[in-house]
Amino acid sequence: MAAAPPTRPRRLLPLCLGLFQGALLLFFALFFTYDKPSAQAGDASLVANQLYSIFPLFQDIQVMLVVGLGLLLTFLPRYGLSALTHNFLLLNFSMQWALVIQGLLHHFHHGQVHLDLRNLLTAEFAAVTVLISVGAVLGRASPCQLLVVAACEVPIYFASEWAIVTRLGILDVGGTITIHVFSCYFGLGMSKALFGAVRQPVHPKETPTPSSDLLSLVGTLILWVFWPSFVAVLCQPGDAQHRAILNTLLAMSASTLTTVVASSLLDKDGKLSPSHLQNGSLAGGVAIGAVADMAVPPVAALALGSLSAMACVLGFRFLTPLLARKLMLQDQCGIHNLHGLPGILGAVASTVAILVASKDTSGSRFSQVSPAGGNVSEAAWGLGGDHSAGGQALCQAAGLAVAIGGSLVAGLLTGAALRLPCLAQLPERLCFDDSLYFKIQDQAKSLGLGGTDEEGALALKEQV
Amino acid sequence: MAAAPPTRPRRLLPLCLGLFQGALLLFFALFFTYDKPSAQAGDASLVANQLYSIFPLFQDIQVMLVVGLGLLLTFLPRYGLSALTHNFLLLNFSMQWALVIQGLLHHFHHGQVHLDLRNLLTAEFAAVTVLISVGAVLGRASPCQLLVVAACEVPIYFASEWAIVTRLGILDVGGTITIHVFSCYFGLGMSKALFGAVRQPVHPKETPTPSSDLLSLVGTLILWVFWPSFVAVLCQPGDAQHRAILNTLLAMSASTLTTVVASSLLDKDGKLSPSHLQNGSLAGGVAIGAVADMAVPPVAALALGSLSAMACVLGFRFLTPLLARKLMLQDQCGIHNLHGLPGILGAVASTVAILVASKDTSGSRFSQVSPAGGNVSEAAWGLGGDHSAGGQALCQAAGLAVAIGGSLVAGLLTGAALRLPCLAQLPERLCFDDSLYFKIQDQAKSLGLGGTDEEGALALKEQV
Amino acid sequence: MAAAPPTRPRRLLPLCLGLFQGALLLFFALFFTYDKPSAQAGDASLVANQLYSIFPLFQDIQVMLVVGLGLLLTFLPRYGLSALTHNFLLLNFSMQWALVIQGLLHHFHHGQVHLDLRNLLTAEFAAVTVLISVGAVLGRASPCQLLVVAACEVPIYFASEWAIVTRLGILDVGGTITIHVFSCYFGLGMSKALFGAVRQPVHPKETPTPSSDLLSLVGTLILWVFWPSFVAVLCQPGDAQHRAILNTLLAMSASTLTTVVASSLLDKDGKLSPSHLQNGSLAGGVAIGAVADMAVPPVAALALGSLSAMACVLGFRFLTPLLARKLMLQDQCGIHNLHGLPGILGAVASTVAILVASKDTSGSRFSQVSPAGGNVSEAAWGLGGDHSAGGQALCQAAGLAVAIGGSLVAGLLTGAALRLPCLAQLPERLCFDDSLYFKIQDQAKSLGLGGTDEEGALALKEQV
Repeated sequence: MAAAPPTRPRRLLPLCLGLFQGALLLFFALFFTYDKPSAQAGDASLVANQLYSIFPLFQDIQVMLVVGLGLLLTFLPRYGLSALTHNFLLLNFSMQWALVIQGLLHHFHHGQVHLDLRNLLTAEFAAVTVLISVGAVLGRASPCQLLVVAACEVPIYFASEWAIVTRLGILDVGGTITIHVFSCYFGLGMSKALFGAVRQPVHPKETPTPSSDLLSLVGTLILWVFWPSFVAVLCQPGDAQHRAILNTLLAMSASTLTTVVASSLLDKDGKLSPSHLQNGSLAGGVAIGAVADMAVPPVAALALGSLSAMACVLGFRFLTPLLARKLMLQDQCGIHNLHGLPGILGAVASTVAILVASKDTSGSRFSQVSPAGGNVSEAAWGLGGDHSAGGQALCQAAGLAVAIGGSLVAGLLTGAALRLPCLAQLPERLCFDDSLYFKIQDQAKSLGLGGTDEEGALALKEQV
Repeated sequence: MAAAPPTRPRRLLPLCLGLFQGALLLFFALFFTYDKPSAQAGDASLVANQLYSIFPLFQDIQVMLVVGLGLLLTFLPRYGLSALTHNFLLLNFSMQWALVIQGLLHHFHHGQVHLDLRNLLTAEFAAVTVLISVGAVLGRASPCQLLVVAACEVPIYFASEWAIVTRLGILDVGGTITIHVFSCYFGLGMSKALFGAVRQPVHPKETPTPSSDLLSLVGTLILWVFWPSFVAVLCQPGDAQHRAILNTLLAMSASTLTTVVASSLLDKDGKLSPSHLQNGSLAGGVAIGAVADMAVPPVAALALGSLSAMACVLGFRFLTPLLARKLMLQDQCGIHNLHGLPGILGAVASTVAILVASKDTSGSRFSQVSPAGGNVSEAAWGLGGDHSAGGQALCQAAGLAVAIGGSLVAGLLTGAALRLPCLAQLPERLCFDDSLYFKIQDQAKSLGLGGTDEEGALALKEQV
Repeated sequence: MAAAPPTRPRRLLPLCLGLFQGALLLFFALFFTYDKPSAQAGDASLVANQLYSIFPLFQDIQVMLVVGLGLLLTFLPRYGLSALTHNFLLLNFSMQWALVIQGLLHHFHHGQVHLDLRNLLTAEFAAVTVLISVGAVLGRASPCQLLVVAACEVPIYFASEWAIVTRLGILDVGGTITIHVFSCYFGLGMSKALFGAVRQPVHPKETPTPSSDLLSLVGTLILWVFWPSFVAVLCQPGDAQHRAILNTLLAMSASTLTTVVASSLLDKDGKLSPSHLQNGSLAGGVAIGAVADMAVPPVAALALGSLSAMACVLGFRFLTPLLARKLMLQDQCGIHNLHGLPGILGAVASTVAILVASKDTSGSRFSQVSPAGGNVSEAAWGLGGDHSAGGQALCQAAGLAVAIGGSLVAGLLTGAALRLPCLAQLPERLCFDDSLYFKIQDQAKSLGLGGTDEEGALALKEQV
């Protein structure tokens, strides 16, 4: 029962990964070094202080990605080990690959690349986009296909970030547009191209059990707790960072309550849907990223959190089934509801916030907002004063459009590449099952916690 | 089988929550703003430093409340999703509600409320009392009833805190009296008034399974690890905070060993009871709160940890069954053993510590304890020198009495309110079951990890 | 069925632990105190800053040991509660015991011992060695036996650390030799002496289930995330600490990918083995400890991570079965593969790194590496300049030899002590079962998540 898969793709994964590791070693040997030691004692203390200000946030983000996101993906009852492992593997592969590309792109003309915690953080952000995108095909794609996705998406992410942040100059401290919207539409494009016009039937192993839902909810809670660190880590220290943390906390708190309201109202018995809760509570964190460090009032964060949770729950209830029916679009984890819709809301909110803030600072509340008027609101936007408010608002909208358009096209191309014959698509009956990737006991015979003692022991003895 | 519940209360929860969210938005729009930006560069660096000193501790506390406490409550094998979700929902609701009340109470006369991380922390402390109290009725109260409890308890907590901290001037940096004792007796009063003189029979779904006990123990461990942050977050930075952390670590370490000793001695086969371990290991953290930052010797922290763990285990073994039999008192999680008894011990310890410290500083060890004698011990008490040692000790005792009396009365009134007809009490047979609140597969048919493959798949196919 | 064990050893555990707690209280009362309060305001701010620099890392390490390592050990499907609890109990016991010994050894001649967070950290490091060693006999040793192991191993650890760090002057900031290699061979020696020449048969409860493997993998991920804190906590603040964090991150990232490659290549179907993944991903963290803060290039950290993961996976596949067959060596958790082999690799790497660095700094790259040449590389080694590079390299090798030899002998003696009649060895059929140590429902009758509702309820009613 546990499948007799073709041998070739079985060796493809370790061979590709092994080659990549070898190339990585060579590349690091040639191009990477650490920062020069700081000579003065005062510098050492400065380095230490910088480290203490970023390292706890970095660790929070690592917990989010490795433990939180990993657990969130374990809602498929027989695919928990694979979901956790593939997430972990992809994070590491994408991060290393992002370091290589970063090295080539940004630092090559300076010779040696000086590695520090900030490089790793940027590389990790690139890896996040991969982790989000593959949610659309969770359980239906092989690890080789996932690696191909990572190999394609990371450079495209850097290109997209260069276009919309460096060239267009959008403000997006928490990655709402650059990370969430980008990775969502990349993932949807890839899923569409991979599965084509064939509608995937509901698979018997696709339905969560109470215990897999529970573990997945624990993942959500871990993400929920540490999300403020993700949004605030790249902010200007001081007021802006403090504000980003508070805005994120408020938005996510509002999301949680609104998710319960919306999910309960949409069910005829008033029951909650676990998947709504697992995703909706986080929607506020996705949406707030673009405005988190701006001088918006607290009520705006609350409202944005509520709206995005509503969009997320409505998306699960109505939009995902509609897209599946009309466009044959497969979105296993509902990334469009958690990252797409709230991301768009957040981008729109950032446009509005910039327009409103510019009116405020030139109007009656001028002196109240800041001692230095426009300068502060510009400082709050983070990139200095080379745009007027209207121009900046336009940039945000243009950035959103570029992110959606570019990622969709790139995703479609990547999805087409996944259909190459050498990457043999999984047959439907083998999907969603750990036993394809792991040497584990057959679950039917396993000595499960609910199984009976004697039978299990007997079954085992026969095996042994 | 999964119940045909009345429709009205089904809509009550989302409607109430929705209205609350709307009112909250309005209130925040009118009254809340962020701190003014700090103009000078030096200020910005100061703000950043303050943030780095409080934010990691704040995150630790969030992990405790959202993940740790949530998991601790999953010991009911079929109520894990609900326990985790209700805890999460109540935390968010209570925190928002506490922000509103804080705004009205403390800051209204200054106009706009300036929101910062410290406000959120105080609001979170108010929310903790709700999370503790509802442990007494875990699995037997509907979400609507839980929201009513939160709505009542938060303002009463602020009143009680004002009375015993601001007016009486008790010293209680870790919330032993103000949080743990208060919420315990509030919860017990509420439970008594809610269930009246009817003794609740043992429910078949009430008994933990090994896997639910395991998850609950993981929750305990998370709480255990981060408890020092909870106790020390509001301490004076420097020596007092360092001492609070060390005292808490020592007390909880002693608790753990004593719990194993006591639980093992009380069983005829010497076996441990999972519930003793889940609660007793934390008893030291509850008790140490009132004395954590005082100049007590390390041995006192160890002894207090041991004693409180002993009280907790003995409470589970003898007092809870006694109270259930004599007073028909329902205490599902044993909050009296974890928060009540250790809390009282901690309050008594704080009285003793103050009396002993005052003798020490006027006696032979005067010069050894501090360069400035009495001033330091007063500084160690945290509130300056408006009480003599005897007076301060009296205050601690009076504060304990007020906390117990006030919370009992308030709890009884709240419990009576929960019996209002519109809040329809759950019938006994529906208790302790996730399927009442969640759209999940029926557990009997679910494709559990221990179930057999073929049957599960068949059952699912029939459903689909 | 749940066993009728002899009564005496049942009382032995609580009695021993109780006596130990009493003695500890006495000892603390006599010898321990807190640091004197710092009188000046400037000092207070300094103390606060020192606290903020060490406390977050300390908490990270606590999470690793209590939650991460505890969960990692839950791969035995019916022994999860015991594995988690014994780990927790041993950590607390060993830490307290280490504090006592530290007090006696290092500070006795100064009178009172001044307790601070750094003392606790050192005590915790001593406790780690116990937690690692007992992995060799997981599930087959009683709690009493585990306490005897802790009682023996902690003083021997301090002796070994004194010999190889203080006397030989080895450089080992992350504990590769002093902690990992030492505890591994101590554990193997103990296991050999305890089980003698009797080969333990495969026990039916020994095989992990998918759900126990999943929980264990979560433990791995938690350890993986926080490992950089473990390695860097005792580094010099500033550049060295920054470098230690980066090196650890790189090594563990390389380990993860290499583990997947190696595990997949070794299986004929290309499937991963969960135990390889659970251990191999951490191998890089073990190996990097000895060189983490040295001025090695990033590529060295990557290469070391890859090599150690390879050694770990090959060890699981070939060496462990070989040792079991030839030497009748029982190693339940595979500590030799996770701590032994990567530890030796790390020690060898540190020797090489010192030799290479000395050539570099006296050669053409002299001025590039540091403004002050040899001084910096010596500073990077951490212990000042009393050794030449060659001498230091020799010391590393000698330290490794002393750690292996000493710990093996000490472990054999400890294992022999575990065979004392008063510590009654568990009969084989009772191993690996929580019900021997916990008052839990019999698993066969338990209302497991996969069980049927009616049967479970009936079974419970009969019991009640």
